[in-house]
Amino acid sequence: MKLLEERILKDGKIKPGNVLKVDGFINHQIDVPFVSELGREFYRRFKDDGVTKILTIEASGIGIACLTGLHFGVPVVFAKKSRTSNISTDVYTARVDSFTHGTTCDIIVSKEFLSPSDRVLIIDDFLALGNALVGLREITLASGATLIGAGILIEKAFQSGGRMLREQGMRIESLARIASMTDTGITFIED
Amino acid sequence: MKLLEERILKDGKIKPGNVLKVDGFINHQIDVPFVSELGREFYRRFKDDGVTKILTIEASGIGIACLTGLHFGVPVVFAKKSRTSNISTDVYTARVDSFTHGTTCDIIVSKEFLSPSDRVLIIDDFLALGNALVGLREITLASGATLIGAGILIEKAFQSGGRMLREQGMRIESLARIASMTDTGITFIED
Repeated sequence: MKLLEERILKDGKIKPGNVLKVDGFINHQIDVPFVSELGREFYRRFKDDGVTKILTIEASGIGIACLTGLHFGVPVVFAKKSRTSNISTDVYTARVDSFTHGTTCDIIVSKEFLSPSDRVLIIDDFLALGNALVGLREITLASGATLIGAGILIEKAFQSGGRMLREQGMRIESLARIASMTDTGITFIED
Repeated sequence: MKLLEERILKDGKIKPGNVLKVDGFINHQIDVPFVSELGREFYRRFKDDGVTKILTIEASGIGIACLTGLHFGVPVVFAKKSRTSNISTDVYTARVDSFTHGTTCDIIVSKEFLSPSDRVLIIDDFLALGNALVGLREITLASGATLIGAGILIEKAFQSGGRMLREQGMRIESLARIASMTDTGITFIED
């Protein structure tokens, strides 16, 4: 999607360790009208799939998921990263490693909010090794819901997650797919 | 605001320790079209104040802030709760105690995203002791930006935060103000 690719070229910053920093418009400051346009594109791609619920993971997925959910008119459920004092103990859990943070955590979704009648679209900011998607898929399937697929803003296609998950049959729609990322620039895989 | 009060009475759950659980429509599952209507109400109340930026705190503030930001057409900045490997070291920080979680953390906003020309509206889900608002105010003022005020979904008016902050001159617009909360029910302060 040209709109996102151009914005990444303009405002994205490459940091050591294959980190692409998009803090200026997605991950710390959120350009709300812009991200809403990305949400509209997810809607265009998934509007005929009967989505009843959008699933994401805190924290940076939440804004994107909400601005996408508005186009679909469906609720967003966000997986939480640790057990808090006011969450039900009756939860689905999965273990997720974070590429960016170098940590491992449990993600949690209350069983109240996913059911076998749900048709779930996963939304997230990045896809690299696919760890978050694997965890969110595990939670979706544990609930008995139908997994429609995943909408991703930025896929690091030079890492293995997207290929692995597509080979396993997951439908993944990434709005920008990065072929390579070096100090001299970013190249994208064309649609 | 009747819309929110009625929803709290219908779907809110009171837990031990004065915790009001609104996980079904705000804090874990987000009823996106509903929260967008709450955002419209914030817009109605602050539309003449020249807001240039909405400031909130991860995680549960993000969805509300984004769905409010869409009405204003301005970016959202969310304060992060800990230093991560891909955030700038050039940050504003404040220390915040969490009523719900019983923890203390540092919240962080990159200096890139707040400037003296900004007019900041703080958005958050709950106001109880006011710790998060104090931290977000501290960060806003450190940046030299103008603080317009705060839009809160649910104020626990039987706790001290709202009174303290209003006495200090902060404009706070709470969409539902809880006068009392017991096992037998919730009563609101009427506008």
